[in-house]
Amino acid sequence: MNGKSNHFSMCHFRFCICHFQNPKPKTRDSKLETKMSLLVVGSVAFDAVETPFGKCEKMLGGSASHFSISASYFTEVRIVGVVGGDYSSAEQQVFDTHGVDTSDLERIPDGKTFRWFGRYDYDLNVAQTLDTHLNVFAEFQPKLSESSRNARLVFLGNIQPDLQRGVREQVPDAELVALDTMNLWIETARESLLQTIKGVDVVIINDAEARQLTGIPNLIKAARTILSWGPKALIVKRGEYGAALFTEKTYFAIPAYPLESVFDPTGAGDTFAGGFMGYLSSQEKLDEAAMRRAMIFGSVMASFNVEEFGTARVQKLTHDEINERFRTFKQMTSFEEIPFERAVRAV
Amino acid sequence: MNGKSNHFSMCHFRFCICHFQNPKPKTRDSKLETKMSLLVVGSVAFDAVETPFGKCEKMLGGSASHFSISASYFTEVRIVGVVGGDYSSAEQQVFDTHGVDTSDLERIPDGKTFRWFGRYDYDLNVAQTLDTHLNVFAEFQPKLSESSRNARLVFLGNIQPDLQRGVREQVPDAELVALDTMNLWIETARESLLQTIKGVDVVIINDAEARQLTGIPNLIKAARTILSWGPKALIVKRGEYGAALFTEKTYFAIPAYPLESVFDPTGAGDTFAGGFMGYLSSQEKLDEAAMRRAMIFGSVMASFNVEEFGTARVQKLTHDEINERFRTFKQMTSFEEIPFERAVRAV
Repeated sequence: MNGKSNHFSMCHFRFCICHFQNPKPKTRDSKLETKMSLLVVGSVAFDAVETPFGKCEKMLGGSASHFSISASYFTEVRIVGVVGGDYSSAEQQVFDTHGVDTSDLERIPDGKTFRWFGRYDYDLNVAQTLDTHLNVFAEFQPKLSESSRNARLVFLGNIQPDLQRGVREQVPDAELVALDTMNLWIETARESLLQTIKGVDVVIINDAEARQLTGIPNLIKAARTILSWGPKALIVKRGEYGAALFTEKTYFAIPAYPLESVFDPTGAGDTFAGGFMGYLSSQEKLDEAAMRRAMIFGSVMASFNVEEFGTARVQKLTHDEINERFRTFKQMTSFEEIPFERAVRAV
Repeated sequence: MNGKSNHFSMCHFRFCICHFQNPKPKTRDSKLETKMSLLVVGSVAFDAVETPFGKCEKMLGGSASHFSISASYFTEVRIVGVVGGDYSSAEQQVFDTHGVDTSDLERIPDGKTFRWFGRYDYDLNVAQTLDTHLNVFAEFQPKLSESSRNARLVFLGNIQPDLQRGVREQVPDAELVALDTMNLWIETARESLLQTIKGVDVVIINDAEARQLTGIPNLIKAARTILSWGPKALIVKRGEYGAALFTEKTYFAIPAYPLESVFDPTGAGDTFAGGFMGYLSSQEKLDEAAMRRAMIFGSVMASFNVEEFGTARVQKLTHDEINERFRTFKQMTSFEEIPFERAVRAV
């Protein structure tokens, strides 16, 4: 079919738009809608990905795509981003079917959508970027409509920290703002990133980034340092080892959902963030208990994401499937709280 | 004091025998004693360890030492091992004070005790062996007394798999036998190791060893493979990421206790195993619920172990300290089981 090695099986879908289940009812009262509004700023991209198990030459990707499709199972979500003339009705239908609001997704007809070319070897924890075409993303200036500026929760996806800060300043009344970043910005825009981090409530990064950002090898000390800069909470993603939530006074850690095969990890972090923020957005109280459940829902969504290429698996989820894995998380982390004295008397 | 770099602070104790608290009453009824009996076969050694934070030129170490001191907080424990003429009353006092039975610790007056020289760099997960003097351990042939052969639970510490199997065959009536191993035996005595694994109930190894043993990179698949060889349970230690318990039908995973400073990881794995097996030994039913609590107690003991050189910290523990960390584990892993449908209605 593609004249390349038989080692790769070509993907047989383009955007996997066939198996949707609309994740929520179409109508809501306006009070609820405002309350449940979640905004994400980030990339909408076309990804080309090779893994040891297959390759896909063009599929919907980018932080805002993975985030919003994941979050759509829990809440109303709006995207701020930019795409080119190659963005078609097929991609739009993915967002539409999931009720994702793309009013603030800017279209540049004579430009091309951001493209990422990546590869994973057997260590699926590490993505190798083969090529990046920023295209219309190079000049991206996030523009927020009135509705977007009124969002209750905001996720600043992994983009240049000046842009993240610009968006953050346009949502002064947001109840909770979270941020993701990456090694590139830690290396090239550190001061701007630190300033941006000061202004957000939650930082969501992986363990290598937490160490790199602080220069501290011990993760617990690194976490304390990041929290001392201003955020109320830090979430550290640890890939196959799970995730941890740090606040000033508490620590919560969960394993990853045990998967016998990981097919394509692209977007797992944004899918986690989408589940986390999406679930929080559905909750009235954004307290520690809600954050802990949100961590589980984030992990559940990420566990589905890696099972197929791109957003394919998450696109066709049901709430039953999501809740089943949520319950499995409970089972796989539960133990009875019987301190040793009592246990001994029981003999 | 030692003419070496100021970077290292010399340890000011030899075996840290000053701060003991006897972990259990001296008398027990004989039925309880039989029921609670735990046997470990492994090394009693002198370790020399350098870490980025200090060095200690000679301290009590070895798998049986770390294991038995840890287990002594929960149960009656006996050591099968061998030491040389350099084993002194100071070391013996450590075991005596913790009620560890050393009747089957063979003494060879004209031999020397096993010595290990190791170093850790800032990545404290990886020990570098600088030198090993097997000494009396080279000719070690475990000899079990009648009391040892009647042990209810047995831990086969990390020694040559033929020797482990020899011990296992001497305790046919043991209710539960667990085994540890290492890369050396996976590489040099694979067939013997597989045969030994077939005959035990629980395998306790780290994630790299699980992958190496099976040749399978995915840990969940590797675990299933190991269980298919015979053991009823597999425990995978993941260092700073915690530990996981696999059985045929269940999966349980816990994070590590969050430590801001890890001083010396030597013996953490054996200290974990000591807490795990020691706690199980205190329990009447060795079911999944007991195994899960035992995982927590194992992790608690390991978290103390790494805070000071060698066995120093674990030697001076109290049950209150142990139970406090057990309760912290509950706090840092707990979340409410509210599937998404219910949560949404709560808005």
